[in-house]
Amino acid sequence: MTAVASPALFRDAGETRSFAPGETIFVEGEEGRQMFVVLEGSVRLSVTGRTLEKVGKGGVFGEMALIDASPRSATATALTACTLAPVAADRFRSLVRENPDFALEIMQVMAARLRSMDRRL
Amino acid sequence: MTAVASPALFRDAGETRSFAPGETIFVEGEEGRQMFVVLEGSVRLSVTGRTLEKVGKGGVFGEMALIDASPRSATATALTACTLAPVAADRFRSLVRENPDFALEIMQVMAARLRSMDRRL
Repeated sequence: MTAVASPALFRDAGETRSFAPGETIFVEGEEGRQMFVVLEGSVRLSVTGRTLEKVGKGGVFGEMALIDASPRSATATALTACTLAPVAADRFRSLVRENPDFALEIMQVMAARLRSMDRRL
Repeated sequence: MTAVASPALFRDAGETRSFAPGETIFVEGEEGRQMFVVLEGSVRLSVTGRTLEKVGKGGVFGEMALIDASPRSATATALTACTLAPVAADRFRSLVRENPDFALEIMQVMAARLRSMDRRL
């Protein structure tokens, strides 16, 4: 997992959300309107019960539903107590437009995920 | 495969490269310095001989090596006679900086690939 510690994401993070260990953050197939930045703790991403990835502090997840407006491709569960900063779709698009480094960081996260998936084939 | 017909990519495409059916474009593990836009024909992406994807006219591939400066994660082979427009790393970064829609289009291609990989798990 490539950590994304983009200052743009932490600045004005606004409202945060807290989850208890084992709590569900979102479920595969749901509509998604937010990406999340992990401020504290760690999160498990899984598809049909198989773990894809653990996302730690500074990491992001849930970005795909903002990029292509499709349902959640995976389920996200709190592995530990965690605090997340939600990033809404309109803020995500503003960040991409105003901050090319943010766009490159998101691409790096996605590239790391694709490489990890390639290795599972 | 999400087609990317970004005008920014076709404008000033510059030098193109042609490949015969079956010809190798790049090989998994190689260093990569270019992304490719498919102007004509189609290309097969594979990992250890397994087809990941077929990329047709208007599609892009090879972007990951530009994003994270890692070796090629897959092998690209011409399925048919094809004409490709190479995009060098510096031009890729300029496009991301100057054209946020290009950045979003690349993210959409990567999201489509990740969703396709999730379905194979």
